[in-house]
Amino acid sequence: VYGHSHIPYVDDELFADRIHVYEGGGGSGQGVVLTKALLENALAKGAEIEYETTVTRLLKNEQGEVIGVVAKQKDQEIYVKAKKGVILATASIDTNVEMAKDMSPQQYWDLTSQQCLCSPMNTGDGIRMAMEIGAAVCGFGGTIDFCGKTGAATDNRVPVFPSFIVNKKGRRFVCEDATYAYHYRAIFQQEKQFNGPTYMIFGESSLEAETSPWNKETLAKDLEDGVVIKANSIEELAKLIDVDAANLAATLNAWNNDMKNGGKDTQFDRVDGLKPINGPFYAYKNVSFNLGSLGGVKINTNAQAIGVNGEVIPRLYAGGLNAGGWIGNYYPGSGTAIIGTVHWGRRAGAHAAKLTSLQ
Amino acid sequence: VYGHSHIPYVDDELFADRIHVYEGGGGSGQGVVLTKALLENALAKGAEIEYETTVTRLLKNEQGEVIGVVAKQKDQEIYVKAKKGVILATASIDTNVEMAKDMSPQQYWDLTSQQCLCSPMNTGDGIRMAMEIGAAVCGFGGTIDFCGKTGAATDNRVPVFPSFIVNKKGRRFVCEDATYAYHYRAIFQQEKQFNGPTYMIFGESSLEAETSPWNKETLAKDLEDGVVIKANSIEELAKLIDVDAANLAATLNAWNNDMKNGGKDTQFDRVDGLKPINGPFYAYKNVSFNLGSLGGVKINTNAQAIGVNGEVIPRLYAGGLNAGGWIGNYYPGSGTAIIGTVHWGRRAGAHAAKLTSLQ
Repeated sequence: VYGHSHIPYVDDELFADRIHVYEGGGGSGQGVVLTKALLENALAKGAEIEYETTVTRLLKNEQGEVIGVVAKQKDQEIYVKAKKGVILATASIDTNVEMAKDMSPQQYWDLTSQQCLCSPMNTGDGIRMAMEIGAAVCGFGGTIDFCGKTGAATDNRVPVFPSFIVNKKGRRFVCEDATYAYHYRAIFQQEKQFNGPTYMIFGESSLEAETSPWNKETLAKDLEDGVVIKANSIEELAKLIDVDAANLAATLNAWNNDMKNGGKDTQFDRVDGLKPINGPFYAYKNVSFNLGSLGGVKINTNAQAIGVNGEVIPRLYAGGLNAGGWIGNYYPGSGTAIIGTVHWGRRAGAHAAKLTSLQ
Repeated sequence: VYGHSHIPYVDDELFADRIHVYEGGGGSGQGVVLTKALLENALAKGAEIEYETTVTRLLKNEQGEVIGVVAKQKDQEIYVKAKKGVILATASIDTNVEMAKDMSPQQYWDLTSQQCLCSPMNTGDGIRMAMEIGAAVCGFGGTIDFCGKTGAATDNRVPVFPSFIVNKKGRRFVCEDATYAYHYRAIFQQEKQFNGPTYMIFGESSLEAETSPWNKETLAKDLEDGVVIKANSIEELAKLIDVDAANLAATLNAWNNDMKNGGKDTQFDRVDGLKPINGPFYAYKNVSFNLGSLGGVKINTNAQAIGVNGEVIPRLYAGGLNAGGWIGNYYPGSGTAIIGTVHWGRRAGAHAAKLTSLQ
């Protein structure tokens, strides 16, 4: 299994080796190879790209077919006629605070209190315009939340170092080596419920792990900046981060007992980073880095947009994260967004190409 | 505090004595007194109610105002002109499997695998018709899930009897005496995650509690029907319900240790039913009884429907659970649905009454 991390309670054998890994690319590829190839191919085939042009609404004819768009270009409103139809491909509601508040509480949390790494241009335009003409939406609620430190489990070649995540009460609540969007969903739920941060707790011994997100230098800097808190005892650490001390000590004790008695995590069935955690102790306040929202226009398997009455909206398509419902309730693994873009774009294009051209 | 149960991690002092309790009604009132009074008052003022008439869509004029509806009456399509405007009040998407699948995973779970006590007439019509003309939606995701046995905590006069809820791994995951929709949200999340049931575990001694949901007779019947499983030891019980035996024994042990050492629930800060649980042991498979979905048409504080571009949709209103976003991400307490109906209906009516009559 390659390209995604452990997902608790899901049989590993159900997964194939196909996400985020391409020949010569390795684990750190960001899709540039793929998008560049697509762009070059499109340009070679005569595609024209209009920059600084914002599509504002969809145009329908009397038969209800989507025949073009209205756009704003350099302060002028222009009408663009479609040849075959319109494919919406403007991502999800990533940086639209209002739509996130309405339809995706975790996305709203990210936008108002966490870090957002999405393009500021992803303002949900495609979804908004489709809804304006009666499209159904689906799949909202999930986000692609990630953290380079707590969520190192992008795939199973990057195991989580010895550490555990606790809520404000000092209790663990999730399998820490789960794929990042999975465990960040749990972090979101805990932080909302307790109205306070969650922390990753680790010890001096943890830093020896090959995959420790800190080296001596970066740790010293984060300690100085207050991003990481250090204490000699777990009780002292609890006091510094305002977490229930008895619970935190009990959590540490349970973890270390598990490690002593066979090295099995009896609490959350974690599979890696299974080593004792010894003092001095450190706490890192979890911060979510949002890479995008799930949820969008409802589509069928031809990427055709579906209206609220279940009917196909003729000549309207949605692809990538602009379309909702083809990902479950958490982002399944690194690279899914980009492969979805390719897949649904291809489906939409293939279907639209077969239509009679508009007059 | 009256009318709702304990909500973990929320300060009890923030709650007022105002839900589900009315003079002479007590805790078991179902809103009949209120709805009957409203109906009689409306009829006395000359309101006419058309039965067996299904509104199918909204009518707009060229200015974008909602001026009436199309309805189906005894196989005939009729047009109904509004005097001032249209107020949508057809509840949420309660029994609409398709809309639930798109927008509310927990409602979908209820409809496809749990028990639904909603009116079969609540098919999301108001929300669908509003979306058809470009209304924004918000607040989906939550449900009003309840169980008379595991969710006895309708309010703080009905404490939970000594018992705890475990997932397929035999671990507790929620404060059991929380208000019912709160703990059923956790049950839903666990059952989806582990792809298996959760159980309420109790002991012979638990049955002596005044608020035990079983007496000798009903317990004997449920044992015979297989609804409740009995075993002499916790290990044997675990085997019968296919739950990790070592974990379940550890959970029971932790509970009873807590009860011995001061009677404080160190795991979830539960406040009632804090008594030891002794064998023989029983397991009851949790079943959610759905009383309705949260989420609906986006409104402002005048109950006016809001379009996807943030604009008011003139002369269109939504009230009660037909409107979304005025309840948080779980149903806060018994009676909220009906008081919301009264409140938003009143706001909508007051605003609409001031409009110029349509020609």
